[in-house]
Amino acid sequence: MEAFSDGVIAIIITIMVLELRVPHEATLTALQPLVPVILSYVLSFIFLGIYWSNHHHLLHAVDHVNGRILWANLHLLFWLSLVPFVTAWMGENHFARVPVAIYGVVLLAASIAYYVLTRALIALHGRTSTLATAVGRDSKGQISTLIYLVAIPLALWKWWIAFGLYVLVAIMWLVPDRRIERTLTS
Amino acid sequence: MEAFSDGVIAIIITIMVLELRVPHEATLTALQPLVPVILSYVLSFIFLGIYWSNHHHLLHAVDHVNGRILWANLHLLFWLSLVPFVTAWMGENHFARVPVAIYGVVLLAASIAYYVLTRALIALHGRTSTLATAVGRDSKGQISTLIYLVAIPLALWKWWIAFGLYVLVAIMWLVPDRRIERTLTS
Amino acid sequence: MEAFSDGVIAIIITIMVLELRVPHEATLTALQPLVPVILSYVLSFIFLGIYWSNHHHLLHAVDHVNGRILWANLHLLFWLSLVPFVTAWMGENHFARVPVAIYGVVLLAASIAYYVLTRALIALHGRTSTLATAVGRDSKGQISTLIYLVAIPLALWKWWIAFGLYVLVAIMWLVPDRRIERTLTS
Amino acid sequence: MEAFSDGVIAIIITIMVLELRVPHEATLTALQPLVPVILSYVLSFIFLGIYWSNHHHLLHAVDHVNGRILWANLHLLFWLSLVPFVTAWMGENHFARVPVAIYGVVLLAASIAYYVLTRALIALHGRTSTLATAVGRDSKGQISTLIYLVAIPLALWKWWIAFGLYVLVAIMWLVPDRRIERTLTS
Repeated sequence: MEAFSDGVIAIIITIMVLELRVPHEATLTALQPLVPVILSYVLSFIFLGIYWSNHHHLLHAVDHVNGRILWANLHLLFWLSLVPFVTAWMGENHFARVPVAIYGVVLLAASIAYYVLTRALIALHGRTSTLATAVGRDSKGQISTLIYLVAIPLALWKWWIAFGLYVLVAIMWLVPDRRIERTLTS
Repeated sequence: MEAFSDGVIAIIITIMVLELRVPHEATLTALQPLVPVILSYVLSFIFLGIYWSNHHHLLHAVDHVNGRILWANLHLLFWLSLVPFVTAWMGENHFARVPVAIYGVVLLAASIAYYVLTRALIALHGRTSTLATAVGRDSKGQISTLIYLVAIPLALWKWWIAFGLYVLVAIMWLVPDRRIERTLTS
Repeated sequence: MEAFSDGVIAIIITIMVLELRVPHEATLTALQPLVPVILSYVLSFIFLGIYWSNHHHLLHAVDHVNGRILWANLHLLFWLSLVPFVTAWMGENHFARVPVAIYGVVLLAASIAYYVLTRALIALHGRTSTLATAVGRDSKGQISTLIYLVAIPLALWKWWIAFGLYVLVAIMWLVPDRRIERTLTS
Repeated sequence: MEAFSDGVIAIIITIMVLELRVPHEATLTALQPLVPVILSYVLSFIFLGIYWSNHHHLLHAVDHVNGRILWANLHLLFWLSLVPFVTAWMGENHFARVPVAIYGVVLLAASIAYYVLTRALIALHGRTSTLATAVGRDSKGQISTLIYLVAIPLALWKWWIAFGLYVLVAIMWLVPDRRIERTLTS
């Protein structure tokens, strides 16, 4: 299941670039309308990178699986598979309000799916398992979910508030990695 | 062969999303014509998930292979590789009768290919092997094949009867996983 | 190198289906112009399956590699990566003579690249290695190369003679697998 | 991380062929406008092959990772993921000056990202680790970066000077592999 999931996330992160349509003209100005597309691409690349990293570590701590976990995992992959679609829609429409909101809906669904997966894994492995302690303090996951819930309606008012909140979530996940790393190298 | 098959199914399940064409307008109504496409996508995602799960467990019990099994396996992957095509055709035509029937034909062919693969594996491993006992009571596979045979002509009359039957097959495969899981956790 | 090559061939065999353009109409007659595309797809699927199988067994016997082998391998993957392109071109033009000839050129180049790879591997492992004995009687590879050399000019005269010769090569590679299998099961 | 990276590079190298648009006519002259596209494809195939080979050997010497390395690696994969885009842009515009320069910018960014990754790895493993000695004499990496810095502005003057410099970098990386191989087989 780990190899399959890694493979699917690797494919999602890579085929996203196929939505970057090659411009017909060979000028820098022809690249200008692509700027929002590339920005969306960068954000989604980081989100998928975060999911790959967290998901990879989660499954590494997994000892055994059952049907429910298998489908909880496929459920998460389903929402991640929609990321290239909403990324392209948001980018090509230069961050119009509805696509920015729908982008948040997919992020929200993925964060809920991830939560469901962790609960199913803990239910199977027991509350005292190493997996449970590893997942345990998943406050960051719950804060992310809350931020998405706030960002989605705000996107319909001012797109950049929602977009800023998405970036905030990404930074929140990126920063602690650096803190851990400092501890490891010291 | 296991890694290759897992890889191919992971790619099929993921590239299917490339058939979800990004709408040019940034409104919710622009997403409306995509609803049948997304519904088809969800159904195919579940079917490919079922195949991945069953196929993965099947190959895990495999001890050794020969040329016939290799090609029986590629034959199954061939029919699964057509799933993105018939999914998009069915979705983009809003469940018109012919595409719904052809979708069933691909499911039927895949279910027969899976049956042929299991028979080739049992022929090689022997009727008393763990593989044979694992596959043994493959009544679900045969019921699925029968349902497809009934659904395909019905699709040409009322598309939603056939579609309902496809959903029924998917549910049939999903439900028992939960039952097994209850046993495992108890 | 084995995992990377398997991955690349798995991706090539699967993305080929993206060249099967979904027809806009929902009728069986709308599928009719796709018949040559699907036929080309089936033939290329079989060829890539043969390459995957042979290549996988070849690399399995490999003990160590060097830079030349790495690039001989990438050279083979390069020609295989062009298969989806020539397959689509041949299919969409209903087996016009030039695309059928160019399809043969890619098959020819791949068969030469495979030969070069086996020679580089034998040069490194020694003529008495298990790898050398495994490859040793590569008469089928050389006959294939010869048939392609004959088929390419013939394609420009009558496309179906060349196409028939390609099918002949595929059958030649498929049949012995069955013979080996009979020995194994007896 | 090794398997994920290998997977991503395998997908990038393969989906690049999807940018080779199938011509509508079935003549050799219809292939003529594709010549620059195919040339760009060959160059990028070689560059990605070099990155795969170097990256694969680098990660093989890695003992443990941390958050910074994980993201340094994703940063490199990000720039490599843009290769299919700039390859298609450069090829379809028949080596116009701006796309040739932007192609160099992506190669430059990837070479810097590779450098950052190696420094992060050495910082974690220590200057006396086998990894540090393996990377140690990375003069080729630094010369490549310098050549890109020179080539990018030159591309805006004469495209073929920049293109020639890119080819030079590729040859620089390919040739030593052959020298090593001669030592190994002697």
